[in-house]
Amino acid sequence: MKFLLFLFVGVVHLLSLNSGKAIYKNDICQRTFQEIKEEIACYGDVAKAIINLAVYGKAQNRSYERLALLVDTVGPRPSGSKSLEKAIQIMHQNLQEDGLENVHLEPVKIPHWERGEESAVMLEPRIHKMAILGLGSSIGTPPEGITAEVLVVTSFNELQRRAPEARGKIVVYNQPYTNYSRTVQYRVQGAVEAAKVGALASLIRSVASFSIYSPHTGIQEYQDGVPKIPTACITVEDAEMMSRMASRGSRIVIQLKMGAKNYPDADSFNTVAEVIGSKYPEQPPISILHIAGLRMKVIVVLVSGHLDSWDVGQGAMDDGGGAFISWEALSLIKDLGLRPKRTLRLVLWTAEEQGGIGAFQYYQLHKANISNYSLVMESDLGTFLPSGLQFTGNEKARAIVEEVMSLLQPINITQVFRAGEGTDINFWIEAGVPGASLLDDLYKYFSFHHSHGDTMTVMDPKQMNLAAAVWAVVSYVIADLEEMLPRS
Amino acid sequence: MKFLLFLFVGVVHLLSLNSGKAIYKNDICQRTFQEIKEEIACYGDVAKAIINLAVYGKAQNRSYERLALLVDTVGPRPSGSKSLEKAIQIMHQNLQEDGLENVHLEPVKIPHWERGEESAVMLEPRIHKMAILGLGSSIGTPPEGITAEVLVVTSFNELQRRAPEARGKIVVYNQPYTNYSRTVQYRVQGAVEAAKVGALASLIRSVASFSIYSPHTGIQEYQDGVPKIPTACITVEDAEMMSRMASRGSRIVIQLKMGAKNYPDADSFNTVAEVIGSKYPEQPPISILHIAGLRMKVIVVLVSGHLDSWDVGQGAMDDGGGAFISWEALSLIKDLGLRPKRTLRLVLWTAEEQGGIGAFQYYQLHKANISNYSLVMESDLGTFLPSGLQFTGNEKARAIVEEVMSLLQPINITQVFRAGEGTDINFWIEAGVPGASLLDDLYKYFSFHHSHGDTMTVMDPKQMNLAAAVWAVVSYVIADLEEMLPRS
Repeated sequence: MKFLLFLFVGVVHLLSLNSGKAIYKNDICQRTFQEIKEEIACYGDVAKAIINLAVYGKAQNRSYERLALLVDTVGPRPSGSKSLEKAIQIMHQNLQEDGLENVHLEPVKIPHWERGEESAVMLEPRIHKMAILGLGSSIGTPPEGITAEVLVVTSFNELQRRAPEARGKIVVYNQPYTNYSRTVQYRVQGAVEAAKVGALASLIRSVASFSIYSPHTGIQEYQDGVPKIPTACITVEDAEMMSRMASRGSRIVIQLKMGAKNYPDADSFNTVAEVIGSKYPEQPPISILHIAGLRMKVIVVLVSGHLDSWDVGQGAMDDGGGAFISWEALSLIKDLGLRPKRTLRLVLWTAEEQGGIGAFQYYQLHKANISNYSLVMESDLGTFLPSGLQFTGNEKARAIVEEVMSLLQPINITQVFRAGEGTDINFWIEAGVPGASLLDDLYKYFSFHHSHGDTMTVMDPKQMNLAAAVWAVVSYVIADLEEMLPRS
Repeated sequence: MKFLLFLFVGVVHLLSLNSGKAIYKNDICQRTFQEIKEEIACYGDVAKAIINLAVYGKAQNRSYERLALLVDTVGPRPSGSKSLEKAIQIMHQNLQEDGLENVHLEPVKIPHWERGEESAVMLEPRIHKMAILGLGSSIGTPPEGITAEVLVVTSFNELQRRAPEARGKIVVYNQPYTNYSRTVQYRVQGAVEAAKVGALASLIRSVASFSIYSPHTGIQEYQDGVPKIPTACITVEDAEMMSRMASRGSRIVIQLKMGAKNYPDADSFNTVAEVIGSKYPEQPPISILHIAGLRMKVIVVLVSGHLDSWDVGQGAMDDGGGAFISWEALSLIKDLGLRPKRTLRLVLWTAEEQGGIGAFQYYQLHKANISNYSLVMESDLGTFLPSGLQFTGNEKARAIVEEVMSLLQPINITQVFRAGEGTDINFWIEAGVPGASLLDDLYKYFSFHHSHGDTMTVMDPKQMNLAAAVWAVVSYVIADLEEMLPRS
């Protein structure tokens, strides 16, 4: 009872502080950077032990093999699907069998969209069956489809200039690929912008760095007050071809059929497992934690990836790799008999692809405890050969992270870049928690991203070993340092 | 009359010599290599003029734009299809309108195979709709499909060892990709080898250097006395997944449906155009040539690519690029007002993909004239940034070709490799005629080869300019040298 009362008071106190940007109090004594540097240098042997186990030892290829077994068994795991829930149940069992602690599921409501049958056929100037992938949350077409002339544009600006031509047409976007965050705006907002000027549907050039006639799906967003029109991605190849045809003055007609449908929200879970910290906190009984729904005194480093995927391919890269090196990080630490001072918490998010739905609900549930998150980590940009770590945090925290990354000198992965991020951890980062993400070859990543090509074939066990080693060393050492990472 | 009589005697004389390996007489005086080297050096200005026109001048991007217009208009051009014949008619007209000489079509009978509707669904261990492409000449399945358990093998040797397991099954080949010529044996002979051990169908890992879940088609060959079974290529991804599943002991069941059908041979044409030589021959009137069916005294350098393609993608790379830089070579030479001593003959082959069907019939019709072919050239390995020229011929001829390639120093493409080849020119090369082919990035080439991804998107106008410059300089200079290329 007392404990519960304490919790309740704590929550009220923190919530009152947490209006707008989160305010926290780091109650651990501050030390000089030189002292911290010396402290980190002492982890050289631990880092080597992790590297040896992950890259050369018994654990090598483990994360790859575990991942292959899951995705071969379950296949792709879209939000709202039975396969996602099957994957979550399997992972719940896997994490328990692996001997991790406090393994549990946290309930979440998630969107449920299914693409159904879909097709697009160019009828003029010649018959050509096109590969498409409807976009997540898109409505379908009437059963007979939508048959209309095409307006090809290369930008939103061109669409605005040619707005009178768009009415009653299918708008085809042939925007060039510059980088993902910029180009993806066409996938997300393409339907809304086309609908605003009276288009019947929109077809968007896949947001991909490279193509072998491969359509790429992803989420799109309707806007209140703007008619909902069906929308899908086409291949880079077809977008370019239609652009050439249009520039020659050819009339292009497409018949688009999409059986896409949105269903009521479905039940799902974030999957959680831990290596419980030795010093922080004095761990309350799990049963009490669950009653309280909060774990106020647990100080954590959070490592994560998301378990859901799109409904094509195997979701091996996005984000099977990230989820499984996160699991592997805890496995490696456990296997070595290590127990950091702070708790290492693994979270396998659900429904990331729909906009971090699982992570948002986790944040809502746990944000009262924000002052006890030392670092949030997510790997969701591939687990190929890591270039290094992306980090967001103040300069002192960055200097500490750079020291930690220097422990990875034996595998020559020591770089620390700017802008640590991840859909699922951005809630925390924006509220001031230091955040880290794994960086590798983004050109390669966006060749396969959200396509049928996201399978185990793109994964490399040796690269996953290295990625897992980086993930384990960073998360363990930061969880074990005397002080939490400082914040601005 | 006299001329015709001479032709007739000549034919009889040559045919009598041409049993087995062709024998020829090079009646042009032999000179020292130093003299030839000096002669070639004199072409420096001509080479620069060609390069300037092709790469920096008015002709830049022309071959790309001409190709884009054709393949966007006609689409893929499989043997026996209306689109191939439409392309041939368009090209016939294009070459005439371009002002080339002796533009004509040479009739050929070619195979006619259509894939029809096709699908493959994995039923066990989980439902998974697979991308496939039936292989050229394959029979179809019964309308209800073939549903059978899978045997996965990684080599013909493994199939032999496990022959008793294959009966009544669908054999899946997951052979690794080593290089095209070695690995393609699985595509060509996979069905026959599987049928020999009692399999009902065979599914072959696509012969590709890189995949984004992209199936690659191509020709396969049945064998007399071996039952014909349906055969298709699957993706690298699915082949690897089934291999993993099988290694875990999972039972795999696939339902394969193929509507493939072989039709009677169709009428087609090789498309021919020339820049007629100024010195060799004294050109007889075209009407007489056609009556004779042979052109005994025309001494030629033959440049070529094939106009047919597979029935997926646009056949832009294989072999639109080769066909169009070959046309471009003649266009460039004509535009510069050049006329080589020997005739430059462009041939756009039909039905190469079925095993050089058009080229074989051309060879049968023209082989009596073999002594008058100085060099046969084909570009059918891509027209990306050229690495150089592949050449087959004796060492003296090679030394001459190396000198000619040195004229391409301004664009830094001077290398001469071994093993000039091409399905369509190999008939001549095997009979002793020097042969040349264009070499570029084969890893890139075999990423797109025979797939939906063979479109204009993989083509680069600047790279095509450079390829056309190489092609024009080599063909023009060798056609204009005092002597034909020597043969062994």
